[in-house]
Amino acid sequence: MFDISKIRTVDDFPKKGIKFYDITTVLNDAESFQELFNALLEKARALKPDVIAALEARGYFFAPALALALNIPFVPLRKKGKLPHKTYAEQYDLEYGNETIEVHQDAIKPHRRILVFDDILATGGTAAAAAKLMQHFAPAKVDFLFLMELSFLDGRKLISGFSVESLIIV
Amino acid sequence: MFDISKIRTVDDFPKKGIKFYDITTVLNDAESFQELFNALLEKARALKPDVIAALEARGYFFAPALALALNIPFVPLRKKGKLPHKTYAEQYDLEYGNETIEVHQDAIKPHRRILVFDDILATGGTAAAAAKLMQHFAPAKVDFLFLMELSFLDGRKLISGFSVESLIIV
Repeated sequence: MFDISKIRTVDDFPKKGIKFYDITTVLNDAESFQELFNALLEKARALKPDVIAALEARGYFFAPALALALNIPFVPLRKKGKLPHKTYAEQYDLEYGNETIEVHQDAIKPHRRILVFDDILATGGTAAAAAKLMQHFAPAKVDFLFLMELSFLDGRKLISGFSVESLIIV
Repeated sequence: MFDISKIRTVDDFPKKGIKFYDITTVLNDAESFQELFNALLEKARALKPDVIAALEARGYFFAPALALALNIPFVPLRKKGKLPHKTYAEQYDLEYGNETIEVHQDAIKPHRRILVFDDILATGGTAAAAAKLMQHFAPAKVDFLFLMELSFLDGRKLISGFSVESLIIV
């Protein structure tokens, strides 16, 4: 099991009352990074995905390496205005205002098993938006993989139609 | 040599007159992705880095996987306000306005050989800011590796004190 103490916690970030899980301390320790990556790879492989999609920006710390290890395509889901070709877009609410994520319309072929990766499942808003985006591609299956899940925020309820795997649940 | 036709070009993005190199088409083709990654890995390995730093967000498509393959730490250089702990910050000019990148103050030990990775070297403004950031860590050496260099923009002149490697030069 991965040693969670390698993940630094920072109080009151990004604002008062929030305890932030800072995974940069893991990336910064080659041994822990390998360990965490291998644990994620094992979970990802078991889901037999045809393609891995990941959310900007922390999802990219692991997902491209997972795609390379599994020899499958990697698809970045990006914030609004970053992808140059035709996109599908999905807006979701944040505490103040909203955010939009996009994916290229030609990024994923129909009937694929899609694995969506992000580092942390919190309220589930971003994940739910990603799930909606994936429906444009008539997927055979959409699974979610997270490095860490903050279960007290109950993010799973927003993606309840999908299988959800988290390496670390707090 | 990597087949550059795998990289899609999009005219007039992000604005009129700019020809944008869209590497998502490479990430989306498992074979090309492996090929490009292996070519970058070979260049990175030859530089014998102790640590790899990369720029948000497209630098993360390759740099964490390079760090894992070389079994060295990965350090994300992030846009302002994203890193939760104490940071060093460096501001640089864009055509309109400016941008700030940050790095955690405890991210890199002194006297290390640092490899800074980004996908594209254009005008060199971001790379020069990264070079300045790295000086806080009293590095033994700072090298730059880019997937692609737009040589007509002469970005090298802004990081002329460092060794610069680019996989593809156009």
